[in-house]
Amino acid sequence: MRFFSDNAASVHPKVLDSLAAANAPDTAYDGDALSARLNTAFSDVFETEVEALWVATGTAANCLALAAMCPAHQGVICHREAHIEQDEAGAPGFYTGGAKLMLLDGAGAKLSPDAVEAHCAAIRDDVHQVQPAAVSITNASEYGMVYRPDEVANLSEVCKARGLGLHMDGARFANAVATLGCSPADITWKAGVDALSFGFVKNGGMSAEALIFFDKTLAADTHYRRKRAGHLQSKGRFLAAQLLAMLEDDLWLDNARAANAGAQLIAAAAGNRLMYPVEANEIFIKLSADEAAQLRGLGFDFYDWGEGQARLVTSWNHSAADVRPLAEAIAAL
Amino acid sequence: MRFFSDNAASVHPKVLDSLAAANAPDTAYDGDALSARLNTAFSDVFETEVEALWVATGTAANCLALAAMCPAHQGVICHREAHIEQDEAGAPGFYTGGAKLMLLDGAGAKLSPDAVEAHCAAIRDDVHQVQPAAVSITNASEYGMVYRPDEVANLSEVCKARGLGLHMDGARFANAVATLGCSPADITWKAGVDALSFGFVKNGGMSAEALIFFDKTLAADTHYRRKRAGHLQSKGRFLAAQLLAMLEDDLWLDNARAANAGAQLIAAAAGNRLMYPVEANEIFIKLSADEAAQLRGLGFDFYDWGEGQARLVTSWNHSAADVRPLAEAIAAL
Amino acid sequence: MRFFSDNAASVHPKVLDSLAAANAPDTAYDGDALSARLNTAFSDVFETEVEALWVATGTAANCLALAAMCPAHQGVICHREAHIEQDEAGAPGFYTGGAKLMLLDGAGAKLSPDAVEAHCAAIRDDVHQVQPAAVSITNASEYGMVYRPDEVANLSEVCKARGLGLHMDGARFANAVATLGCSPADITWKAGVDALSFGFVKNGGMSAEALIFFDKTLAADTHYRRKRAGHLQSKGRFLAAQLLAMLEDDLWLDNARAANAGAQLIAAAAGNRLMYPVEANEIFIKLSADEAAQLRGLGFDFYDWGEGQARLVTSWNHSAADVRPLAEAIAAL
Amino acid sequence: MRFFSDNAASVHPKVLDSLAAANAPDTAYDGDALSARLNTAFSDVFETEVEALWVATGTAANCLALAAMCPAHQGVICHREAHIEQDEAGAPGFYTGGAKLMLLDGAGAKLSPDAVEAHCAAIRDDVHQVQPAAVSITNASEYGMVYRPDEVANLSEVCKARGLGLHMDGARFANAVATLGCSPADITWKAGVDALSFGFVKNGGMSAEALIFFDKTLAADTHYRRKRAGHLQSKGRFLAAQLLAMLEDDLWLDNARAANAGAQLIAAAAGNRLMYPVEANEIFIKLSADEAAQLRGLGFDFYDWGEGQARLVTSWNHSAADVRPLAEAIAAL
Repeated sequence: MRFFSDNAASVHPKVLDSLAAANAPDTAYDGDALSARLNTAFSDVFETEVEALWVATGTAANCLALAAMCPAHQGVICHREAHIEQDEAGAPGFYTGGAKLMLLDGAGAKLSPDAVEAHCAAIRDDVHQVQPAAVSITNASEYGMVYRPDEVANLSEVCKARGLGLHMDGARFANAVATLGCSPADITWKAGVDALSFGFVKNGGMSAEALIFFDKTLAADTHYRRKRAGHLQSKGRFLAAQLLAMLEDDLWLDNARAANAGAQLIAAAAGNRLMYPVEANEIFIKLSADEAAQLRGLGFDFYDWGEGQARLVTSWNHSAADVRPLAEAIAAL
Repeated sequence: MRFFSDNAASVHPKVLDSLAAANAPDTAYDGDALSARLNTAFSDVFETEVEALWVATGTAANCLALAAMCPAHQGVICHREAHIEQDEAGAPGFYTGGAKLMLLDGAGAKLSPDAVEAHCAAIRDDVHQVQPAAVSITNASEYGMVYRPDEVANLSEVCKARGLGLHMDGARFANAVATLGCSPADITWKAGVDALSFGFVKNGGMSAEALIFFDKTLAADTHYRRKRAGHLQSKGRFLAAQLLAMLEDDLWLDNARAANAGAQLIAAAAGNRLMYPVEANEIFIKLSADEAAQLRGLGFDFYDWGEGQARLVTSWNHSAADVRPLAEAIAAL
Repeated sequence: MRFFSDNAASVHPKVLDSLAAANAPDTAYDGDALSARLNTAFSDVFETEVEALWVATGTAANCLALAAMCPAHQGVICHREAHIEQDEAGAPGFYTGGAKLMLLDGAGAKLSPDAVEAHCAAIRDDVHQVQPAAVSITNASEYGMVYRPDEVANLSEVCKARGLGLHMDGARFANAVATLGCSPADITWKAGVDALSFGFVKNGGMSAEALIFFDKTLAADTHYRRKRAGHLQSKGRFLAAQLLAMLEDDLWLDNARAANAGAQLIAAAAGNRLMYPVEANEIFIKLSADEAAQLRGLGFDFYDWGEGQARLVTSWNHSAADVRPLAEAIAAL
Repeated sequence: MRFFSDNAASVHPKVLDSLAAANAPDTAYDGDALSARLNTAFSDVFETEVEALWVATGTAANCLALAAMCPAHQGVICHREAHIEQDEAGAPGFYTGGAKLMLLDGAGAKLSPDAVEAHCAAIRDDVHQVQPAAVSITNASEYGMVYRPDEVANLSEVCKARGLGLHMDGARFANAVATLGCSPADITWKAGVDALSFGFVKNGGMSAEALIFFDKTLAADTHYRRKRAGHLQSKGRFLAAQLLAMLEDDLWLDNARAANAGAQLIAAAAGNRLMYPVEANEIFIKLSADEAAQLRGLGFDFYDWGEGQARLVTSWNHSAADVRPLAEAIAAL
């Protein structure tokens, strides 16, 4: 059983079905009937008027958001282990025209308001130093921890005082919301988020993510940038279809709850092996090379995560029955 | 019946089926079993060893090819009406870091070797003027005409003498090959093409195009640039599946032949209304506003193409029975 | 005697003197006392409050202005023979992050309001086509012709209606003002110009040009962009000194008048050899290869300008006695 | 007396004289007789054939060097406190098209071979992570320490093994060479340096720095990039003149020795206030706010350098008589 990553899991049948249902000619690009429904559908989810654009990848969603917030000569504050810094091949530099990522530390790959404020305060207000334009946080974080609404609001307060935009990389936003039990609005615009990369591919989607603008003034140019980046697919209706299928009857939340539940099973078994609280669907544990080999010998696949550590990721399609053997094997180590 | 554009047509059932068949967990990005088959599959098609990368759009394929051939401080020669100049929102400037498109004229949106040579000869060999690095041609062209192998070879001769790379935008490559009746090899690497954007989306695909490198030294950095542009999808197997489905039993050629056949029906009916020879699946005709209204009144949809002109595009899913009423209506005008 | 180009002429003694006078330690970059005087000095010249930045080259001035007006995904309308298109090695693409230059025709390298409006009207208002953000004109033009205040005002009207910024490349602004006999204000902000590259190097300066913002909201980010482009010299006082020396007692106008007067001498002698009216310090004449050789045999240096044509440029340091022999030689051909 | 920075000091009289001497018309840009002598003059200094380009600023020199070594999708390893990271407003991101600076720690702002190797080893060899292309070191470093030839050679060994270019930011190269007492060759190409930003402006120059390519294959495209960045001045002979004046009779070394001698006077007086060994012309000392005020009350100007610290910089034009009062005042604190 694979616990490598949720981004390689299978696609939810309803998503696949939505593709077949969308397979009639319609206007190209985002001029079709399904794409036309996105703004309304996501506005319903967020209880406010948003602008929603489909894109094929989280990297595209993140970087289009950053390009909307940060001119080429400024910078984006993020965690040193943020996905945009570690795993996107320099895409933020490409999309922004060379803006700088400003790397901060913080437990569990989370930024604190104090760290952001201290970083800003240390930058001289002169033309020799790159000035920050935005902050990007990941929720759930790269170590599977969540920001709570008040934490985001506190960060937003610093952002507003400093004139910075606030972006949330929500590759696992569904998992965060499922854990928090709050409304999507509470953890985003009500807490001061300007733009959200709302991930679906790790949560049962195939090839569609949503870029959500709460600050709609950021959206207009983004339509041009999406096209300019080669991300305006001509049969865009097949991306819209996936997103609508995921929103219908809160499938996105059901999927996230399933993945989170699996993670909790493992967390309970892992006990003090846990390196971080398990608040989404990623579990980081201490695991010796021998122990890792033992688990792999039992048919469980996962990534090593540095020396003596491992990362396990549960997916929407992992049932309790799928996960329990791994949990038991860990408990038995 | 819609004759707007092949890029909004429905997806071929075998392509849709391939998605369902691919729906089991596999390694993410392009580490899966299907993606691993692409190089071999396309090498078979082209009868030489090629490197093939999937991307979601023709714009991404074109611009990744250009970025591989042209540094930021040089230029790409193309036709004034080339898709990369007219319809990609400045994407070449984005991907290359600001390289210049150098626009030439030519009948039917085709470049001639003489025009390319004359353009190069007129550029002073000093640092004040942007020097060309590549030539990009579209086959079939933006006006539905094809380059024959000898025409491409003649262009390539100029390119080689001038040290320029040669890119072919093959958004409708299938239609061109179907018309030419030559082998894919004849019209590409054997005629000196270094990289090809091999289009599938306009030909019954959903969201996968192939970027083919005949000059494999251009491919290595492109893998990084694809990721950096946000085009490395995590469930890449669904793009590979589409491409493999299209190659199987030459479905791509069957689809193109169907679209081309429809175009020939219309061409025959249009007679001297034709503005260009019909050599692929696009038909450009003289059509007054009244005549256009008349056709639309009969239920035919298409684009006006400037004053007194119209563009009709046939698709893989247009049967003769679908097209004949339009042909007859045009003949009856 | 050299009539190649004013940009290789000697430096006016007062400019050299100003360097020696500035040679005491002062605050680095533009924090010195001389740089601090620039805004006031240029505001006096233009009879309105402007923001003035020194840079070393006209290319830097032009491209910083364009970067302030045009985001990476838009375009700048200019003449096909504009210096920014022909002779700056693609610098606008670099500074803007890949924006497109949109090339128009027009007699004497001048743009007409109708041509600009027609170009804008032909661009579809959709994300596939690059939208214009600014217009750049050169005064005096690349063929030595001037825009009059009403011509600029008419262009500005189109710009305002279309939401476009208006930039004036004034590499030979002094020559234009000297010819027009108008105030610097009349031909710039009063006619709707937002930013001006005010050239001094071709007019007796050594290494300092002024970038003038009439729309001061464009200036703030430009300070960062100037630094980011490596154009914020640490001993900036030596650039400020040059500019102040040129402004003192209207040295810039005296120099331009001298160059223009020389051009008129030649123009009078050239008669119907002239290809364009001579309105600044450049003279374009029909000249056969034999005739060119004859003039060169007499010791006159100049550039051929295509087949059967030549360009002659007079400089601030050409006296009537310097120019008369050339004029007589041309008359005698 | 100012001890702010050497980059605001006065210009050496011989440099000023060279400007007057160069003030006759010559070919524009770098086609003049003085510019033509640069390659030979610097090849003599370095005892090998180099290619030398003048530019106006160290930022331009550094970033043109980096752009020659690092494609947009890769990265440059440097110290966390490197000038290119801290004080160039993101210029490396601009010139490279968005490449990443990879920041390492190290005493005295110096990089160790081990740190570079460890950084490279930690980067996964996959397309998700930015791969390094070059290393940039500063000699003398930002904390006034020098790399010795064997230190550079050891770094170069790592670079060669990893396929990385090696750039030396020599804003204070003269001070380093004066301290080391080695030949310029020993500390550069003989130790594996591919390109050097050879600074003159901090050392008595006015507005000319030299970019030296030991790996001459890197130089060709740089000529285009220099123009494209607006750094090809039309009266380039005035930059060449400055550089030649500085090289004549080793004026550059004399100036550096004078500045270094002043620094040693202060260092001796500062005793255990010193935060770093003084190996060039910068002195970093512990200094309380009260003490700083006391020194300023005596007429000495300098920068605070964080809490309880100060930076003092001596210049070529500081005589022992100029510096001694400061030294004595520090000793008397």
